[in-house]
Amino acid sequence: MSKVAVIMGSISDMPVMQDAIDILNGFDIEVEVDIVSAHRTPEKLYDFSKNAHNRGIAVVIAGAGGAAHLPGMVASMSPLPVIGVPVKSSNSIDGWDSVLSILQMPGGVPVATVALNGAKNAGILAAQIIGSSDKCVLDKIILYKEGLKDAVNKAAEGLKK
Amino acid sequence: MSKVAVIMGSISDMPVMQDAIDILNGFDIEVEVDIVSAHRTPEKLYDFSKNAHNRGIAVVIAGAGGAAHLPGMVASMSPLPVIGVPVKSSNSIDGWDSVLSILQMPGGVPVATVALNGAKNAGILAAQIIGSSDKCVLDKIILYKEGLKDAVNKAAEGLKK
Amino acid sequence: MSKVAVIMGSISDMPVMQDAIDILNGFDIEVEVDIVSAHRTPEKLYDFSKNAHNRGIAVVIAGAGGAAHLPGMVASMSPLPVIGVPVKSSNSIDGWDSVLSILQMPGGVPVATVALNGAKNAGILAAQIIGSSDKCVLDKIILYKEGLKDAVNKAAEGLKK
Amino acid sequence: MSKVAVIMGSISDMPVMQDAIDILNGFDIEVEVDIVSAHRTPEKLYDFSKNAHNRGIAVVIAGAGGAAHLPGMVASMSPLPVIGVPVKSSNSIDGWDSVLSILQMPGGVPVATVALNGAKNAGILAAQIIGSSDKCVLDKIILYKEGLKDAVNKAAEGLKK
Amino acid sequence: MSKVAVIMGSISDMPVMQDAIDILNGFDIEVEVDIVSAHRTPEKLYDFSKNAHNRGIAVVIAGAGGAAHLPGMVASMSPLPVIGVPVKSSNSIDGWDSVLSILQMPGGVPVATVALNGAKNAGILAAQIIGSSDKCVLDKIILYKEGLKDAVNKAAEGLKK
Amino acid sequence: MSKVAVIMGSISDMPVMQDAIDILNGFDIEVEVDIVSAHRTPEKLYDFSKNAHNRGIAVVIAGAGGAAHLPGMVASMSPLPVIGVPVKSSNSIDGWDSVLSILQMPGGVPVATVALNGAKNAGILAAQIIGSSDKCVLDKIILYKEGLKDAVNKAAEGLKK
Amino acid sequence: MSKVAVIMGSISDMPVMQDAIDILNGFDIEVEVDIVSAHRTPEKLYDFSKNAHNRGIAVVIAGAGGAAHLPGMVASMSPLPVIGVPVKSSNSIDGWDSVLSILQMPGGVPVATVALNGAKNAGILAAQIIGSSDKCVLDKIILYKEGLKDAVNKAAEGLKK
Amino acid sequence: MSKVAVIMGSISDMPVMQDAIDILNGFDIEVEVDIVSAHRTPEKLYDFSKNAHNRGIAVVIAGAGGAAHLPGMVASMSPLPVIGVPVKSSNSIDGWDSVLSILQMPGGVPVATVALNGAKNAGILAAQIIGSSDKCVLDKIILYKEGLKDAVNKAAEGLKK
Repeated sequence: MSKVAVIMGSISDMPVMQDAIDILNGFDIEVEVDIVSAHRTPEKLYDFSKNAHNRGIAVVIAGAGGAAHLPGMVASMSPLPVIGVPVKSSNSIDGWDSVLSILQMPGGVPVATVALNGAKNAGILAAQIIGSSDKCVLDKIILYKEGLKDAVNKAAEGLKK
Repeated sequence: MSKVAVIMGSISDMPVMQDAIDILNGFDIEVEVDIVSAHRTPEKLYDFSKNAHNRGIAVVIAGAGGAAHLPGMVASMSPLPVIGVPVKSSNSIDGWDSVLSILQMPGGVPVATVALNGAKNAGILAAQIIGSSDKCVLDKIILYKEGLKDAVNKAAEGLKK
Repeated sequence: MSKVAVIMGSISDMPVMQDAIDILNGFDIEVEVDIVSAHRTPEKLYDFSKNAHNRGIAVVIAGAGGAAHLPGMVASMSPLPVIGVPVKSSNSIDGWDSVLSILQMPGGVPVATVALNGAKNAGILAAQIIGSSDKCVLDKIILYKEGLKDAVNKAAEGLKK
Repeated sequence: MSKVAVIMGSISDMPVMQDAIDILNGFDIEVEVDIVSAHRTPEKLYDFSKNAHNRGIAVVIAGAGGAAHLPGMVASMSPLPVIGVPVKSSNSIDGWDSVLSILQMPGGVPVATVALNGAKNAGILAAQIIGSSDKCVLDKIILYKEGLKDAVNKAAEGLKK
Repeated sequence: MSKVAVIMGSISDMPVMQDAIDILNGFDIEVEVDIVSAHRTPEKLYDFSKNAHNRGIAVVIAGAGGAAHLPGMVASMSPLPVIGVPVKSSNSIDGWDSVLSILQMPGGVPVATVALNGAKNAGILAAQIIGSSDKCVLDKIILYKEGLKDAVNKAAEGLKK
Repeated sequence: MSKVAVIMGSISDMPVMQDAIDILNGFDIEVEVDIVSAHRTPEKLYDFSKNAHNRGIAVVIAGAGGAAHLPGMVASMSPLPVIGVPVKSSNSIDGWDSVLSILQMPGGVPVATVALNGAKNAGILAAQIIGSSDKCVLDKIILYKEGLKDAVNKAAEGLKK
Repeated sequence: MSKVAVIMGSISDMPVMQDAIDILNGFDIEVEVDIVSAHRTPEKLYDFSKNAHNRGIAVVIAGAGGAAHLPGMVASMSPLPVIGVPVKSSNSIDGWDSVLSILQMPGGVPVATVALNGAKNAGILAAQIIGSSDKCVLDKIILYKEGLKDAVNKAAEGLKK
Repeated sequence: MSKVAVIMGSISDMPVMQDAIDILNGFDIEVEVDIVSAHRTPEKLYDFSKNAHNRGIAVVIAGAGGAAHLPGMVASMSPLPVIGVPVKSSNSIDGWDSVLSILQMPGGVPVATVALNGAKNAGILAAQIIGSSDKCVLDKIILYKEGLKDAVNKAAEGLKK
């Protein structure tokens, strides 16, 4: 079955990116985790990006903060869909730098951007991408969304008591 | 084969969204185009979102401007991956409203956001999503990226003359 | 007498939205409170919005954060005046996303937006809307505003001592 | 029947504010139009605000640009609901000043803010406020929203041909 | 001798505004302090603004936060120079609302705006205004600026040890 | 009588700064105009700032765009009140750079900042500063403000016809 | 003598980047111009960055717009000083994306960022870097700055006539 | 050998600027540290800027916050490359003022701007500038970058265990 790679620019992004790993585990989707820094390990970035689609990876989730170049650089070299997670790192200007340097990719090289620190949604989106051609995962997503509804309904009931 | 639905909140978004249609046509991916307004045709939105995955659609591309609710509302009701295109409409505040109201979705309901007016990239991303499980489309994307490189190289050569 | 519905996208919005409930209680206006999530309970959103005006509700106050679609989606389906409260939730980008995705509604579907976390003012505005056709509530508002003045005057006197 | 006052800080705001007048005319709601400048005619502002509710006005729509104080100052002196229209005037910083100086009112003094240049929505909101206690106007709003839907559907059909 | 009035919209602005009072005390300039809320005590605002120049006040310093209308409204009714201090109050959006609603005054009605929470500089500016026609105060300002230099030089020397 | 110096960083700022000169001429206040660039003529800046108060200048108006250092640098060396006019020059980022680099001065060195391109208000503010100790100028300002009121009233009457 | 490389992400950046070339020509510094796209020619980027310092290049000037990754990626692979020029390209959000994705580099990998569209200053900065170890170029820079002063003085004289 | 001057506007900037000193010490580059305030010690600023290049300094690193004029004013008077460090000081508006008033310099007077609080990168950039003409320092930079890679690789290995 299809695997998802979760990579990040620095070990300090791990607390945010863990949410993506947890969600994918919950959907029984195999995850490969690595640290790949666009700015500090450019050769590893090239190797990773050029080969990911050749070893069973279907979607790449890449998280980075500040002038976040990791998601865009993977997207420039891999034919796979790349999901970018803007991380609000300590030296970020309120997260705006992370968001804009991932979102505003030039024509030809898309990055599927999610909300600031939105690693959980990156995991769900990766599952939806796999689910778009895998009925079994699609059904799990439908179930997951039912669960969201139930949680809200339960909270609403609690409110009325 | 998988189809992509391209929907938009208003006919005035068509000049921007046409880029997505053109790209998908170039990849020989079947496209379905419609106008679905979250704010003016909420019932149509409901019908579209609940049923898209049952009639062969694999990815939804949704464009909207201002307080852009269309991509997020489709995402709330469909298990499919939804790509959001923030449109810089005439009454937008420099596009910030369009970007933020599509990007900043709550946990559980992702929208794969592309750049402001980035419908072309939305088309490529949809192709990449299909390509992640369809070797034939994946090969076309690899070819497409080669084409991007050639165009830059040709421009660089022109410069040197 | 007219009722006001106070709804919110998540139970975590309750500490902010409580201010609206307290103000309305102070004006002896009946309040109905519920959790309705645009993204997690879209069917409940439809039911609520389509029927609110048929069961004695005169004004809807809706609070939500991030890519806040709840106020706008209620406004798209209800003929009632909808007051939107942008909530500065934990994953919001300084509140800008909440503000812009509520305020910048397209032509035809207004949301009466108040300040970030301004649930108290949402309650007062709802009372003013009822007061615009109900002399008794109008008089209470005039009294309330006198109270604001007295508090300032008292503080000014305290300063002089 | 209830009247709506449409006021603005300067005659240069008229092209934007005309949309509110047109919408209210379309709903057969009586409109009173005036220029009241918070900064240049403060006494007129005082008179207007103190007396509007005594001569049959139910809602005030106030438009202003830049450091826009008109809506908030009317709200400070009138018990009526005040709708603020941020106008993107020539010396505005992309409209942000107009939006923030109308929206971010302190606790106790709400202004119902609509989108930048959103005078049309201000008119609809005023009608909805009147409609919240006037069945005849409410029915017109329901009809108006049906009309919005029809326009979208017609555009969608045109697309398919 | 000329007096300076230091007014603020709320007692909660006092910790910020105290800096202006301290500076003016240091220059032996008489200060009058009061709470005048544009939104909660509009009549007091009128009285204050219309009469300040008739009772020996030469400069008004007005501090307010959020949709800060106090400095601009005083400026609309008083012929005196008005210094506006944008206060970063608790419900402010990072101070942008306070800054823009004080700074962006329309043509004809200036407010001399200082930095966010810059009450200290407001005090110095008021002294400079008085000093522009009062040789004795001017000399004190020249001395004050020498003191700033000395403090930096002392810190620089400390660094070298 | 007191003079006002109007300086600017570049001849390209003249169309904006002319408004200040015109207003001051209208108040019969003597004006001295010069180009002083903080970045290109630092020695001239030094000479100007150190000596302005010794040759009858009471107020300095300084306009500059982008990373606008002129007003702040004059303020650092002159004991006079300095009014800063943020100019929206061609390479400015929507004027934000001009505004923030003039407004956000450190404690000890105030600049009286007016609106973006607000040279007209800078002229009025300079007149008000002179008027704060000169009854004759004060009376002219009171008259000027009456004129503002009349213009609005005339426009309002025109509207009613 | 040392050479400067001027590279850009797209031929459409040429009108902006020409300013850097012109300035360097004026200082008689040898310039090498090329198009290197981080997103479309990642291999060329790699080759360029790894080898620039081995063939006599002393400084790299890199211009790019939107999610501008070119300057940062060169900086990640080259030991040379890299000057980044944020270009306000057509799909940029007012230039903020270009600025932030070049400026906000992580610790360890600096990019010397100049103003939006500031290619002229990039050229001067490159000359200053060479001049910091080359007396002849340093003298030219001192002369160049004298020229700036003369231009301002001439404009100031023109004004006085 | 070439020296680097590290100056700052206030002793309170020292905790941020220390990073630049530490990096330069690590590269065995001589550092001179001083406090020079553009606004409080303008004469010292003139002396420093006019003479730095005459006493063996090759690069100036200048840190300042708020309306940060220090880097730009040094750049206006010195022919040396000036690196600006925007400091997020306590009264800064989220750092935007510091960034824009350093970055957006006018044509003719560049400042090499690094990230908000990016003093570490300022130190590396200064070393790279020296390294562009000094093979020994260049080799140290190549080594330093290898060290960055090793740290990431070690973290990546730790992750896999």
